[in-house]
Amino acid sequence: MNSIISPTEEFTIMVETVCRQARESAYTLAAASEQQLNRVLRTLATRLEAATTEIIQQNKLDIATAEQLGQSKAFIDRLTLTPARVEAMAQGVLEIAALRSRTGKILEERTLENGVLLRKVAVPLGVIGIIYESRPNVTVDAAALSLKSGNAVVLKGGSESLHSNRFLVGLIQEALTEAGLPTATVGFINSTERAATLHLLKQDKYLDVLIPRGGYELVRAVVENSAIPVLYHAEGGVRIYVDPSADLAVAQQVAFNAKTSRPSTCNTLDTLVLHRAIAADFLVAALPELRAAGVRIRADETAIRLLTPELALQVEQAEEEDWGTEYLDLILSVKIVDSFEEALDFIRHYSKRHTEGLIATDQTVIDTFVRMIDAAALMINCSPRLHDGGIFGLGAEMGISTGKLHARGPVGLDELATYKWVALGKGQIRK
Amino acid sequence: MNSIISPTEEFTIMVETVCRQARESAYTLAAASEQQLNRVLRTLATRLEAATTEIIQQNKLDIATAEQLGQSKAFIDRLTLTPARVEAMAQGVLEIAALRSRTGKILEERTLENGVLLRKVAVPLGVIGIIYESRPNVTVDAAALSLKSGNAVVLKGGSESLHSNRFLVGLIQEALTEAGLPTATVGFINSTERAATLHLLKQDKYLDVLIPRGGYELVRAVVENSAIPVLYHAEGGVRIYVDPSADLAVAQQVAFNAKTSRPSTCNTLDTLVLHRAIAADFLVAALPELRAAGVRIRADETAIRLLTPELALQVEQAEEEDWGTEYLDLILSVKIVDSFEEALDFIRHYSKRHTEGLIATDQTVIDTFVRMIDAAALMINCSPRLHDGGIFGLGAEMGISTGKLHARGPVGLDELATYKWVALGKGQIRK
Repeated sequence: MNSIISPTEEFTIMVETVCRQARESAYTLAAASEQQLNRVLRTLATRLEAATTEIIQQNKLDIATAEQLGQSKAFIDRLTLTPARVEAMAQGVLEIAALRSRTGKILEERTLENGVLLRKVAVPLGVIGIIYESRPNVTVDAAALSLKSGNAVVLKGGSESLHSNRFLVGLIQEALTEAGLPTATVGFINSTERAATLHLLKQDKYLDVLIPRGGYELVRAVVENSAIPVLYHAEGGVRIYVDPSADLAVAQQVAFNAKTSRPSTCNTLDTLVLHRAIAADFLVAALPELRAAGVRIRADETAIRLLTPELALQVEQAEEEDWGTEYLDLILSVKIVDSFEEALDFIRHYSKRHTEGLIATDQTVIDTFVRMIDAAALMINCSPRLHDGGIFGLGAEMGISTGKLHARGPVGLDELATYKWVALGKGQIRK
Repeated sequence: MNSIISPTEEFTIMVETVCRQARESAYTLAAASEQQLNRVLRTLATRLEAATTEIIQQNKLDIATAEQLGQSKAFIDRLTLTPARVEAMAQGVLEIAALRSRTGKILEERTLENGVLLRKVAVPLGVIGIIYESRPNVTVDAAALSLKSGNAVVLKGGSESLHSNRFLVGLIQEALTEAGLPTATVGFINSTERAATLHLLKQDKYLDVLIPRGGYELVRAVVENSAIPVLYHAEGGVRIYVDPSADLAVAQQVAFNAKTSRPSTCNTLDTLVLHRAIAADFLVAALPELRAAGVRIRADETAIRLLTPELALQVEQAEEEDWGTEYLDLILSVKIVDSFEEALDFIRHYSKRHTEGLIATDQTVIDTFVRMIDAAALMINCSPRLHDGGIFGLGAEMGISTGKLHARGPVGLDELATYKWVALGKGQIRK
């Protein structure tokens, strides 16, 4: 997406039309009841199940193309829909329907000195643009979350899943029609041209926010070229500091879970920061289990000197670049520090401000860590892998935001809302 | 700011250094107590008063340059500091010190199914960049609001007030030193070169948010060139719909106040949208007062036909472009509609989503208006001029945001905060 292609007139018109009609639909949505929106979602769940065979037929066309293009097994796995996966999509839609939407909630209320009753009321954002790659279930998830939160949405999926996405959008639009809502409420950019994507990034007149869901390159391209505010996930990666006051059994259990439970995720442990006082004990206890799970260890010189000769042989020496790397793989770096202050300096220097962990029982250490470390989530004496909208009890999520404005961490229904101020007076004027 | 000048190395280094040091200071600020921050503000207020003579001396240098450049009287008035204005600045700083900061407040708290105690805690944004024009009091206001909310700040004022700003920042930095905080907490771009400004827009590594304060051209240039999220005020402008159920005395009083109390502001009335049923009565009652206050009236044909011949002579015919114009002047357009639905359509078509008004007593009309019209503030039976952070009881404000993400309407202390999730566990892991 580095070379800016001038969009052809055809794409221009199509993209603008889809976005403008979604904006019009957002106005219709404002008049819709939550029951009506839930009806769309329940109808959609039923239609997904009923159309399982056709969905899989369409999906096979995408898989055939991917195979012709020689895509990897992992790529094709992400792309593939099975009866079980369609069933899971339908279940997900029903779970979203059961969530509580924030729309219309009075967030604050007060009577001003002049007698005006002032309310801060939660309202939908308006129109959400979603640009995503590969997994066709995002089509259904993202549409369901947008609808539940009262937003219209414009979807732009990847070329690899065009047939699947197009068919799924058709089902969504049928469910909208059945509930008396315009099909344009869930708009679809039926094109895989880059020009269409680039033109979508300029529709700030119609779209209120863009959410890119995919690899870092996609996200960067959207952020750099968008005229629309973007909610996005940049880099992830996690450090856990183990304090001398730590329960070492907890530290070992959390570190193992944080590194091995799903190494390709953004809330996976990258670097263990160990206080020298407990480093030897901890490493001797924890390393064999990690090594047995296939984890490669990259430790600093101090750590290696603390190990038994046998263990030392199983460890590589860390380089400077290890400390800033999000591995997304079964690799773990180990850094020894002489003090809590050194740990804080190390963490804030290398933190991506996504998730940082602490194992300690000393309350002063916990309080200081919570105060001084700036990240979307701080996980104290528990696994950083728990940083997740579902586990946080926020319901389904659109992703994790690494920005600080509007949404930090999980982006769920509440984060797909904004607010308006409503002032109710009796003729008050400004003096 | 349309031609991108390659920044010279000197500016590059200076801008980056100021921003990097501000980021470092934000870490020191995290350890500072609210008392310590209040001490800075109280010291600053004292120093401002004590240095009144020197401030005015420095300000005279800026005024002399402005006069040499043949700037307008209004421009020079905005630039000018008097003993009363310095006193007002000092008072403003004390008022900000007396506000309640959100830092550290627990916004949500719950125990998850797995026993983890999860908290959503308000924290400062980090480092705020502020780009502003002319009025030197912004230097003091913006720095005080940033400090009170626990943020470091980088200030970039206009060339016209360089001497004043530089001296005021000196006083702020003295107050920081006296309270034991680094001077870099309030950074200052001591340059009036565009290259410096453009380079500032690229410091996303160090700045968390940019707030441009000034004319629409400045704001647009910042939004278009910034790699940093921007909180900003785009267009303003106001419509008020007068329903048949309206108390016409309230309508007349609010319309007069909304148009005449300070016509150059963004919450000033532009277009009266009158239901045909009350249009003649309202206009006959309201127009003479508005005309006497020097307001030019631009009405549609229907309105003109409803007027007495004498009144009709005092009214110009509105053109299509009137309906979308933010006049910022003593001009008022009048549109007649046949129904509430037509009024809603008209308003949403021309709304800038800043402030919209309604005069009505019919509760169904009020509820429908509140639900269907999307703007930062809806002013029902009161003047749109009341859309203001101070009047809303939010304390001093950094401006009004017309965006929907993060902050909508007044940007006060609460909006200069973000949050982090803090999970407190006892060894919980992800299954």
